[in-house]
Amino acid sequence: MSAVDFAQFVERLADAASAAILPFFRSAIHAHDKSHGGAFDPVTEADRGAEVAMRGMIRDHFPAHGVVGEEFGTTNPEAEYVWVLDPIDGTKSFISGFPTWGVLIGLQHRGRPVYGMMRQPFTRESFVGDGAAAHWRGLDPSGAPVARPLHSRACADLGQATLMTTSPLLIPEAKRDAYARVERAVRLPRFGGDCYAYAALAGGFVDVVVEAGLKPYDIVALIPVIEGAGGIVTTWDGGDAAGGGDVLASGDPRTHEQAMALLARG
Amino acid sequence: MSAVDFAQFVERLADAASAAILPFFRSAIHAHDKSHGGAFDPVTEADRGAEVAMRGMIRDHFPAHGVVGEEFGTTNPEAEYVWVLDPIDGTKSFISGFPTWGVLIGLQHRGRPVYGMMRQPFTRESFVGDGAAAHWRGLDPSGAPVARPLHSRACADLGQATLMTTSPLLIPEAKRDAYARVERAVRLPRFGGDCYAYAALAGGFVDVVVEAGLKPYDIVALIPVIEGAGGIVTTWDGGDAAGGGDVLASGDPRTHEQAMALLARG
Repeated sequence: MSAVDFAQFVERLADAASAAILPFFRSAIHAHDKSHGGAFDPVTEADRGAEVAMRGMIRDHFPAHGVVGEEFGTTNPEAEYVWVLDPIDGTKSFISGFPTWGVLIGLQHRGRPVYGMMRQPFTRESFVGDGAAAHWRGLDPSGAPVARPLHSRACADLGQATLMTTSPLLIPEAKRDAYARVERAVRLPRFGGDCYAYAALAGGFVDVVVEAGLKPYDIVALIPVIEGAGGIVTTWDGGDAAGGGDVLASGDPRTHEQAMALLARG
Repeated sequence: MSAVDFAQFVERLADAASAAILPFFRSAIHAHDKSHGGAFDPVTEADRGAEVAMRGMIRDHFPAHGVVGEEFGTTNPEAEYVWVLDPIDGTKSFISGFPTWGVLIGLQHRGRPVYGMMRQPFTRESFVGDGAAAHWRGLDPSGAPVARPLHSRACADLGQATLMTTSPLLIPEAKRDAYARVERAVRLPRFGGDCYAYAALAGGFVDVVVEAGLKPYDIVALIPVIEGAGGIVTTWDGGDAAGGGDVLASGDPRTHEQAMALLARG
């Protein structure tokens, strides 16, 4: 069974997650602080409801599959197929009323991300990829459904690049110098975005994304989208990004090399 | 003629601007750099086309009115009514493919902002206010039009606040300490947003916005929205924000006082 056979199922997972989440977007809801006095890390009813819905569908349809989820942990991680779910990537954007969060649904086959989707339920967009190709689906100005291929853009020189990171405040002290070398090298550094930054990179609007301390569920779903669009995503030192950690994504391998050199120096 | 009489006309201005802009959103377009070697300040064909369209409609319907526009300067600024236009506030978000830019349309009567709209054409949302009330218009999940009143939220203590600023890199060196005192005082500092941050404040999702060096067209349209939602917007030292400059907006007068004290200290 190839990864492409899962496309319709992923669509249904995203629909179920969207239905669970949207009623809570821009409603007055109580944001639990699961870090208990640490960094602000809101978890909403929406987040939990969406993951419960997706896990139930996976259990019903593919009982042998494993699941890694942001809210409810890991089930059967040694399975041939493992779903990697982040129902609301960008919870801080979500609670701030911004439409730049997303539902992340990734599928790993023997540990390799083979299919992924970022769904933005409010803007009704999906960014989808299987590592070989990627596409965007959304609405045209009249509200009619439309789809377009995603292609990352060429950028030979980091000095011409648009860089994104969700927030420099999320990069640990010890790594800020490395990050800052890249920030100083680019033409336009921009903050914000979470998963939307990687989606914009796949779309050819952003050249480099640098982040630190990601969990696997923050990035697994995005890897087949970025790679399918012609981009590259690794850890800062060029390793496999599927385990999370310090992640560098680029639309062009040349800027990727240049950014990796700056992140490694010193 | 009261400001409310202009509501339908503002809607048509926003529709014309949206029609001029949307074909260029997420297209490969050439971004001019009008600062000629200074800070990156992209101007797009979309920006210019939208302002031309809006200026033409104002000239046709209200030839005695003045216009202040981001792209084409000031016409008849001493008129009783002056329109203040920023066709694409957040051009860096725009060229990065993010849906967090907006069309800003403000109306001043004898120098006082009396009506304003932030339109986001891609998400098909409008945030509208007349200083006494404000509302949001958009689409529900089925795509049907929906409207809701906007109310900023209570936040008695700056320590519980969500703060937004478009980018700390946009705050001049000499003012960063003042800004940083506020950033350290809040619960959750967030970056990004441009006009969307003020709209989120009016919606009750963000408590404080701090920015520096704004132009009048960056803020005039937002003042009647913020104030209509129950918020407050002034310069850092409590003066009239309609002239731009260093701007502080808050959803609750108590956090406004606390933030002003921190911005003024030292």
